[in-house]
Amino acid sequence: MNQLKNDTFLRALMRQPTDYTPVWMMRQAGRYLPEYRESRKNAGSFLQLCKSPDFATEVTLQPLDRYPLLDASILFSDILTVPDAMGLGLYFAEGEGPKFERTLCEETDIRKLTVPDMASLQYVFDAVSQIRNALDGRVPLIGFSGSPWTLATYMVEGKGGTDFLTIKKMAYARPDLLHRILDITAQAVTAYLNAQIAAGAQAVMIFDSWGGALAHHAYREFSLQYMEKIVAGLTRENEGRIVPRIVFTKGGGLWLEAQAGIGADALGLDWTVDIGEARKRVGDRVALQGNLDPAVLLSTPEAIEKEVAGILASYGHGHGHVFNLGHGITQWTPPANAEAMLAAVRTHSSQYHA
Amino acid sequence: MNQLKNDTFLRALMRQPTDYTPVWMMRQAGRYLPEYRESRKNAGSFLQLCKSPDFATEVTLQPLDRYPLLDASILFSDILTVPDAMGLGLYFAEGEGPKFERTLCEETDIRKLTVPDMASLQYVFDAVSQIRNALDGRVPLIGFSGSPWTLATYMVEGKGGTDFLTIKKMAYARPDLLHRILDITAQAVTAYLNAQIAAGAQAVMIFDSWGGALAHHAYREFSLQYMEKIVAGLTRENEGRIVPRIVFTKGGGLWLEAQAGIGADALGLDWTVDIGEARKRVGDRVALQGNLDPAVLLSTPEAIEKEVAGILASYGHGHGHVFNLGHGITQWTPPANAEAMLAAVRTHSSQYHA
Repeated sequence: MNQLKNDTFLRALMRQPTDYTPVWMMRQAGRYLPEYRESRKNAGSFLQLCKSPDFATEVTLQPLDRYPLLDASILFSDILTVPDAMGLGLYFAEGEGPKFERTLCEETDIRKLTVPDMASLQYVFDAVSQIRNALDGRVPLIGFSGSPWTLATYMVEGKGGTDFLTIKKMAYARPDLLHRILDITAQAVTAYLNAQIAAGAQAVMIFDSWGGALAHHAYREFSLQYMEKIVAGLTRENEGRIVPRIVFTKGGGLWLEAQAGIGADALGLDWTVDIGEARKRVGDRVALQGNLDPAVLLSTPEAIEKEVAGILASYGHGHGHVFNLGHGITQWTPPANAEAMLAAVRTHSSQYHA
Repeated sequence: MNQLKNDTFLRALMRQPTDYTPVWMMRQAGRYLPEYRESRKNAGSFLQLCKSPDFATEVTLQPLDRYPLLDASILFSDILTVPDAMGLGLYFAEGEGPKFERTLCEETDIRKLTVPDMASLQYVFDAVSQIRNALDGRVPLIGFSGSPWTLATYMVEGKGGTDFLTIKKMAYARPDLLHRILDITAQAVTAYLNAQIAAGAQAVMIFDSWGGALAHHAYREFSLQYMEKIVAGLTRENEGRIVPRIVFTKGGGLWLEAQAGIGADALGLDWTVDIGEARKRVGDRVALQGNLDPAVLLSTPEAIEKEVAGILASYGHGHGHVFNLGHGITQWTPPANAEAMLAAVRTHSSQYHA
């Protein structure tokens, strides 16, 4: 495979020395970029962008071309490809989030759920290979998946970001059914991420977008436990190099100590946590990725620089920090403000790596 | 004033000895009760329930009549009465949350904002007096308000529960404008709560429903600071008794140590925090109120009892715990399940107060 020219991101995830703090942005290929909006128009829909390796490659590379200061690329895809492959019928209603045509509420349907044939997700693995070729070693490529709990919220509720009452009712009244969904999904995610690694993903990230909605003990039982199983089943090395794993539970800042013990190399942080305090809590067990509030990018270059400098100073001296937003970049971000953030990270971070 | 027959709730808030763990439920007068739905139909709308002292008294008493195990009552009202009195035009669109006709985005409008005349909120204070009379000392009456940050999110965004991008952009780009809104609102809330106390509220609670959306340092600057100012300005004693203050930031479990230092007598907890760990973190500075996930009440009496017992055991021996939900009871709760929760609290809590 092509030689990696910039491995700062991979080194930081393994808490190895780097000259500066590497940076990428969650959802960096997204609607805030005019070139992305153009590609999406050409593809016809968001789902077509995901399902066409050509389009996925095109938009994955766009932020890299615009921002030479980015230290990582991430596969352009959606977390819901896995439940879609399970036959639930993913669709996007205009102006709304993702939805499923069928939901898993009936015991008979839950009993019938199986790990999907990975061949039905070949378009994802083809995209990974094609992106790796197109990158030609510029920066590493991150593969990703949703966590079993997060995928299950969509599978049971039919949509995301609600009060999760249907799935929580199942969690408390019929935990056996929910555990069956989570178990099958964890097996599917493990196979899915390993196939991404085989196709060329050089790091993997598990997005637990809705884990923060759970009670503390329920988080351990219904989300963290399954992420631990996935991590244990992941290919550790490929192309002669360790494939680092990042686990990110949005709203999970109270549970970092537990997250640090599941075998991940790095934890994602949202903006509610002080990254310096987080570092003290997890010690040298994991690297940390984060954690600027994406809303800051709506303000001014001066305010952005101040906030970036504050996060870097809070993390302090030493390695093991990957700078990122605490959640996906919003579509209202002026592209010049994203650039201001990237420049501020580079300018202010060298002093902490001396 | 009428003699208080059950002061368990007030004693627990002050961390004084009680025979059992007192309990009430956020939004206990709500749509899950058929008698409430009947009153709401008779009143014509939610807002009419709030604005009529007769109706407000009627629905405030309903859960007390149904559940003799409740240890507190709470004024039936809405947190948005204050911005409504500021002239923003509160309304409820059918099937949606509260909205405002006018929002505070323009600097000229923000400069014109003033503390409203408390006479425009007389209907609230009348309701407090009338409820106190109707209670006839059965249990204490809690008054409440939204926090300045939470009220400001509605005032600037026009609605709640969004991604808060408009107000956060203001926070980072024009903090001076947001501080002006928060300062005026904090003055209004202080006067509002003091008038509730003068009318008979025996404890007060500040609901910071959206503080958890802020970055850690922004929470201190834009939310906690103003709650501290309010607490410092509250009437401390009335009717010869201390009026305890409860502060509740939903999603604020990471910041309990800071919350414990603002002069509140008790902190509300949502379900993401282990209450035993929270107790260790705040020590003997404050009592704790919480923290069952309201979704548990959608399950079975057996599951409810198990979860209640777990929370009581986690808090452990000693006083200073008020049992509650971690957020408002949902409209889908079977009333018998709420009763199962109340019974479980009484049954399981005595052992910790021996």
